Amino acid sequence: MQEIYHHTYSNGLTLLAERVPHVRSAAFSFSVRCGCAYDPPDSLGLASVLSELLVRGAGERDSRALTSALDALGLDRSESAGVWLMSFGGATLARNLLPALTIYADILRRPHLPEPELEPVRQLALQDLQSIEDEPQAKVMVELRKRHYPSPIGRDYRGTEEGLASLTIPKIQGHYERHFQPQGLILAVAGDLEWNRLRDYVGALFGDWRPVPVPEPPIAPFRPQSGHLEKDLDQTQIGIAYASVPMSHPDFYAARGAVGILSEGMSSRLFTNVREKHGLCYAIGARYETMRDRGNIVCYTGGKPDKAQELLVRTLHELTDLQNGIEEEELQRVKAGLKAALIMRQESTSARAGALASDWYLLGRVRTMDEMQAAIDSLTPRHLIDHLRTCPPRDFTIVTLGPAPLSWST
Amino acid sequence: MQEIYHHTYSNGLTLLAERVPHVRSAAFSFSVRCGCAYDPPDSLGLASVLSELLVRGAGERDSRALTSALDALGLDRSESAGVWLMSFGGATLARNLLPALTIYADILRRPHLPEPELEPVRQLALQDLQSIEDEPQAKVMVELRKRHYPSPIGRDYRGTEEGLASLTIPKIQGHYERHFQPQGLILAVAGDLEWNRLRDYVGALFGDWRPVPVPEPPIAPFRPQSGHLEKDLDQTQIGIAYASVPMSHPDFYAARGAVGILSEGMSSRLFTNVREKHGLCYAIGARYETMRDRGNIVCYTGGKPDKAQELLVRTLHELTDLQNGIEEEELQRVKAGLKAALIMRQESTSARAGALASDWYLLGRVRTMDEMQAAIDSLTPRHLIDHLRTCPPRDFTIVTLGPAPLSWST
Repeated sequence: MQEIYHHTYSNGLTLLAERVPHVRSAAFSFSVRCGCAYDPPDSLGLASVLSELLVRGAGERDSRALTSALDALGLDRSESAGVWLMSFGGATLARNLLPALTIYADILRRPHLPEPELEPVRQLALQDLQSIEDEPQAKVMVELRKRHYPSPIGRDYRGTEEGLASLTIPKIQGHYERHFQPQGLILAVAGDLEWNRLRDYVGALFGDWRPVPVPEPPIAPFRPQSGHLEKDLDQTQIGIAYASVPMSHPDFYAARGAVGILSEGMSSRLFTNVREKHGLCYAIGARYETMRDRGNIVCYTGGKPDKAQELLVRTLHELTDLQNGIEEEELQRVKAGLKAALIMRQESTSARAGALASDWYLLGRVRTMDEMQAAIDSLTPRHLIDHLRTCPPRDFTIVTLGPAPLSWST
Repeated sequence: MQEIYHHTYSNGLTLLAERVPHVRSAAFSFSVRCGCAYDPPDSLGLASVLSELLVRGAGERDSRALTSALDALGLDRSESAGVWLMSFGGATLARNLLPALTIYADILRRPHLPEPELEPVRQLALQDLQSIEDEPQAKVMVELRKRHYPSPIGRDYRGTEEGLASLTIPKIQGHYERHFQPQGLILAVAGDLEWNRLRDYVGALFGDWRPVPVPEPPIAPFRPQSGHLEKDLDQTQIGIAYASVPMSHPDFYAARGAVGILSEGMSSRLFTNVREKHGLCYAIGARYETMRDRGNIVCYTGGKPDKAQELLVRTLHELTDLQNGIEEEELQRVKAGLKAALIMRQESTSARAGALASDWYLLGRVRTMDEMQAAIDSLTPRHLIDHLRTCPPRDFTIVTLGPAPLSWST
């Protein structure tokens, strides 16, 4: 039996925890509703710069002292800005969990956002932005999301050169004050922990933080648009996206299973039929992505320019052919892979903390292992095919990056 | 207390196992002495092609049936060719461990190496080789190793176009027969396991395999050579390598601690002094690499071409400045990070199986957690500085990839 706990404080902050017996580590993850979708349109890149500035001095500590204090706890940590959420995660020995959370209360509530750090942080963000020009695989996926999702959902956290150039400390400070507050904030913890003590401790750190309403950004009406980006490359990069259902939808496990048939394990269809049989690409894969209100399938592959046309056509064929038949045995293999992965993730405190936070954000509750295993076990080829006929792979957004455009019909 | 077991069968195969209590998974790793260093000079890329061909049919199963059988066990697996070792690793539910090992006995001992699969596999290997032309960070590190290590140690597993073109099934079969044998083969397993049963089971699968002597390749005399590769890129890529001690050396922990001061945690010197203070690069890091007979430090960074000269100079300064002084407090932080990482790795069965195999290969024994923790605890700034004075960072091999060469003096 899993020991999962949750408590929502009166200011709207939710604490989730899972006690994982027999481990000595603990991992945590803060999810703040301040992803790049909330960046003001003239300040794209703000969330990314803010996430880095927040750890450059907070509470009683300047930048150097703060970083040293976190390292002294043996903390393996990261900050990142996604589309909707800014995340602060860390993992260390269980005995260092509460001291680490104490420092994060400073980071989230009492950051210095120091003027002299802005320029170095801006330079880093510019480097990060420019470096994707040299990373074709990352580049094609960034462009795919921009062309597939409406604004601001399709944004890349890296922002734009103009957006980064426009940032000032007062602007960043104002954005911080509008978005950093406890309502909707999630703190998820997994590992060797004591629930009552943790709940009281987090209450003492964050309980007196006052909520403020945060407006949601409007989502612009949008028509996805395929496209080609010309670049002299040794490989043509291909990104494909199409709509699926979100995690909250009753068809979620069927959708997840269908992606598994395409891309889970080495006997999956994309791997076998496109990579192994024809050697058309080294890397190929399809992934299910979900937000609260929408789910999508995103595929990546890349191959030699003279074979790229065949690679695209064969890949699209596998996507659309799925609804024509799925064998019991191939679904059994997908189920075996999904269930083994579930159990292996359960053995990592970091993965577990991330899953608690993600479930709560997407569903407003935490799924147990038993629930997920039962849902996977109950899938049949019929469920997958019915789902694929209701929500067929079509209206593909296709973005290519390479020496020449490709053509397709769907 | 850790439960670590080992048994060397009469044919030279070593089985290592660690029972990890309270997990439901098990992970394994086979290490075969057939890395790319053993490739015949006119067949570079052979090990990589062989590792992929081995899983395309073995024992009673053709390629498709073999992949399906492994996927049906929920196995998350990978094959790879390193410099010295070819590795086959997998992780799944503990109850599927023995069935998985049974299939791997076929893969290692009774592969089909089927003629019709050669061409698709060769195409994949070519794609993999060509794709690094579009990945500047990978490219600069491949070139760095070629110029820093003597042949065949500096080889990249991807081989060459000519080498891949020359491969035939008889050539591959001959190489397989010369190198696949039990003497020196390591099988490491970690997770929920029963030692006696595992030892007997592995004995039944592999005990009657006959050893043959495998000649070690000669290592050519060599002088490392720095160099620049011209390419129109948005970032100049920089790789730096220099000699350290191998893991078997008494100074190993001091060398590892010194790299930690450079690159462990966000308060490490490269991160703080080059990245944060000056914003000269987005990514920077130094890593300790060890083989049986030699250790090296390998650094990577990359930045804007107009700042790349400053980036290189500041990075080199940090490397050479280390021996001028290390503070007790900064070493304490490195120790905290190394020890937390040790314990977190201990909680992953895959990481644990990999560590057992690596220790055995490099040292001929398995280090316990207590031993490693005690060695880290006992480090003082004096140990690190004494080591750095005996084995100073110098004679750097520097490889750059970008629009213009850089200059340096050391």
